[in-house]
Amino acid sequence: MKRKLYVIGIGPGGREHMTLMALKAIEDSDAVIGYGPYISYIEDLISGKEVISTGMGGEMERVEAALKSADSGKTTCIVSTGDAGLYGMAGPVCEMGKNYPEVEIVVVPGVSSAFMAGAVLGAPLMHDTALISLSDLLTDWDLIKERVRAASEADFVIALYNPKSKTRLTHLEEAVEIMKRYKSPETRVGIVKNAGREGEEIITATLDSIPYDRVDMMTTLIIGNKTTFLENGKMVTPRGYSL
Amino acid sequence: MKRKLYVIGIGPGGREHMTLMALKAIEDSDAVIGYGPYISYIEDLISGKEVISTGMGGEMERVEAALKSADSGKTTCIVSTGDAGLYGMAGPVCEMGKNYPEVEIVVVPGVSSAFMAGAVLGAPLMHDTALISLSDLLTDWDLIKERVRAASEADFVIALYNPKSKTRLTHLEEAVEIMKRYKSPETRVGIVKNAGREGEEIITATLDSIPYDRVDMMTTLIIGNKTTFLENGKMVTPRGYSL
Repeated sequence: MKRKLYVIGIGPGGREHMTLMALKAIEDSDAVIGYGPYISYIEDLISGKEVISTGMGGEMERVEAALKSADSGKTTCIVSTGDAGLYGMAGPVCEMGKNYPEVEIVVVPGVSSAFMAGAVLGAPLMHDTALISLSDLLTDWDLIKERVRAASEADFVIALYNPKSKTRLTHLEEAVEIMKRYKSPETRVGIVKNAGREGEEIITATLDSIPYDRVDMMTTLIIGNKTTFLENGKMVTPRGYSL
Repeated sequence: MKRKLYVIGIGPGGREHMTLMALKAIEDSDAVIGYGPYISYIEDLISGKEVISTGMGGEMERVEAALKSADSGKTTCIVSTGDAGLYGMAGPVCEMGKNYPEVEIVVVPGVSSAFMAGAVLGAPLMHDTALISLSDLLTDWDLIKERVRAASEADFVIALYNPKSKTRLTHLEEAVEIMKRYKSPETRVGIVKNAGREGEEIITATLDSIPYDRVDMMTTLIIGNKTTFLENGKMVTPRGYSL
């Protein structure tokens, strides 16, 4: 029988948004691996288990540790917030997994932050949506800008992940400048910090009034399309039903 | 105290992919409203509750019934598969909700089918992804085609929802023709029918070899970007970590 390595998206962090399968996979695991802050979200679920937690940037160490752990016969899980398959650990695990033919990789999907942010804002997605990360650690910044441009030109709703970090201070402003070539300055913007976990903050703005100093790396932004409106405290992109 | 209306994304259908909050919200509800087939996924959770199930296309009836039910004092939920905020019921509920000021609308996010399909394929998303529905019931077909074009030009991974219906037989082929103006015919494509529920089928192909006759309205397609590969049975879009 193959040894299981679960690659788990635990969702935004609040326990209630975790799926039953994520919960069960953690329960079934002998060893749990993840970035420290993510491990803290599931602390109460992993007592008695072997825990390997590493700092930011140790992605490849974590992936290798997880594959080795599973290969040694321990049922193992590696956890990401959100969905493990979007900017998460599923990619490198599947890539490196070819060196561990005895390990069966099971990706457990979760609620990604665009959807969590969307839920607390009302219904801003509803329609064709582009998911874009502004982190240029692993992607060329020119390509990211081209994606922002193309998505704006075709009037997608845009969900921005990783809008800012300590070393990346002006990417969001640059991206907004590109959007404004196609989207009206009045376009609705929803800004959610810590969506779906402790410390949640919701701000609504327009493309012209984003409070940049309140955006950090724990923030997700949703930029509406031409039809998105704010009414009654809800940000909504109408799907076009006749009401 | 306000009366609660939960707008629930139950995920792909398989119980294990439902979130704890979705489960609890259904449990807490006196009345449950949804499209017949969706209700069937949660049949065992709703015995003893008032159930209003309607056929396809009765969206506005369902929304109104849900708001009226909550307004009358019953804790109510309206269920969608996937995430309620993407092509789901959250939009019309929030729009119509303004006429029911006593009703508190709580959107409960869920795992959307692009993420479920991604998980069973391996890790094809990983990167900037455009979510596009090919249904032109509520969106102009020219706008959908423009979105397919722009997303292809900027080398997004593309997840296609609603690729086909009984009356919409050639939209997918048209969309693929547009993609091929920018994406290589060898671009990897993952095709998942009934992702995350009974009857799941996984097909991998290239942009040039899509088996159109095997695609139906329960199918999600994921079209890779330039770097997406298939190895060891997994479809992976590398995120750019050095392995």
